[in-house]
Amino acid sequence: MKVLNDILGYKNLKIYQDSDFFCFSLDSVILANYSNIRPNDKKICDLGTGNGVIPLILSQRTKSNIYCVEIQTKLYNLAKESFKYNHLDNQITIYNCDIDDKINFPFTDFFDLVLCNPPYFKLEKKSLVNISVEKQIARHEVKMNLEKLFKVTSNILKTGGNVCVVHRPERLIEILDIMRKYNIEPKKIKMVFQNIESSSKLVLIEGQKGGNPGLKVESPLIMYDSTGQMTEEYFKLMEEVRK
Amino acid sequence: MKVLNDILGYKNLKIYQDSDFFCFSLDSVILANYSNIRPNDKKICDLGTGNGVIPLILSQRTKSNIYCVEIQTKLYNLAKESFKYNHLDNQITIYNCDIDDKINFPFTDFFDLVLCNPPYFKLEKKSLVNISVEKQIARHEVKMNLEKLFKVTSNILKTGGNVCVVHRPERLIEILDIMRKYNIEPKKIKMVFQNIESSSKLVLIEGQKGGNPGLKVESPLIMYDSTGQMTEEYFKLMEEVRK
Repeated sequence: MKVLNDILGYKNLKIYQDSDFFCFSLDSVILANYSNIRPNDKKICDLGTGNGVIPLILSQRTKSNIYCVEIQTKLYNLAKESFKYNHLDNQITIYNCDIDDKINFPFTDFFDLVLCNPPYFKLEKKSLVNISVEKQIARHEVKMNLEKLFKVTSNILKTGGNVCVVHRPERLIEILDIMRKYNIEPKKIKMVFQNIESSSKLVLIEGQKGGNPGLKVESPLIMYDSTGQMTEEYFKLMEEVRK
Repeated sequence: MKVLNDILGYKNLKIYQDSDFFCFSLDSVILANYSNIRPNDKKICDLGTGNGVIPLILSQRTKSNIYCVEIQTKLYNLAKESFKYNHLDNQITIYNCDIDDKINFPFTDFFDLVLCNPPYFKLEKKSLVNISVEKQIARHEVKMNLEKLFKVTSNILKTGGNVCVVHRPERLIEILDIMRKYNIEPKKIKMVFQNIESSSKLVLIEGQKGGNPGLKVESPLIMYDSTGQMTEEYFKLMEEVRK
């Protein structure tokens, strides 16, 4: 069922979702709020945008042009409708194709910043039972895996351009490897923890095309304190970034 | 000047230091307290033991045999004296040679657990001014670098054996790479932060020889709270591990 929802904390935005097959994830909101937009980042791209939550949030943080790609036509249509509803169709352009489709998404050495909340899980036979094709594509590496993501990212980024992704820590080593394989140097890691005692379930990684080696492990993002309240830092990230 | 010092929290231990040229570091104490000693870890090794603080602490956590290597004769002598002073010379054996000296340190597929607090800094010309040779060797990759450390570690560890090192986050990517080059799979990472707002200055990494891929990013170790007091977790690590 198609519904028009709020995005946590963004009073001026609404987003179309279809609760039957796809809703945006909190991880995308964290990524969109966390990502560093430099003053000269004039062309920004979100790969695999889903229903467009990342471009919607970015539009509140920058006046730069935002491009995004979504292979699933149902999600593309939802995203397009949301951009129009929020009067953002001048700032945000969306493409309905695969991320490596050079005919329909013809950019090389073009973007200053690329974001992506990719599917987290490797494709295994047992992965594909009991969920819809739409969810499979969003969660499992059916249409996009890490190799494809960073190969495309390296191609579409300018030298000196940044990429920022959110992923699972279990795959951190693989991600760092593949980034460097495609000339993207990991520069910052921020680990996200549900609380101070839990192991990490989420990691934010920033890399730079052609960057010099030298990794910074930023202060951890602890989401909730021992009483279950949002920590100050998480609150800041989720609520204050838009001020 | 040679002095006999306490080791934080270990009332039963004393350690010889020479304040003119080498004192053990807090990082070594953190590593020795943090490292996971499995019930079947019967042979344990500390590579580049300095004045022996890691074996001394380990002796309070296990009855297993502890072996250690130190290339610098002055430090070797200090360590040997400390082991004797604490009546631990039956449990701890120390070798005065390079870690890859197969004549004087002739172990292959032998250890269940290897620890190391290696020199952190790459060898650069400017590194070597104004500090003593002893400090150069302890801090800079003069006698041991990451390649040598993990090559030796892989050789002396049994398959299924663990290695646990402490290092700087700036070199994390290089460390993960070199571990895997020598068949040591990174299994756990624990980031250490001075406080909740600082970026990480220290990382603890555990790997397993011949282990399967799959990394766990453990809960972060925050050392001090906003009032400058030790956090509960840091206090537990430093004070309670020995109970």
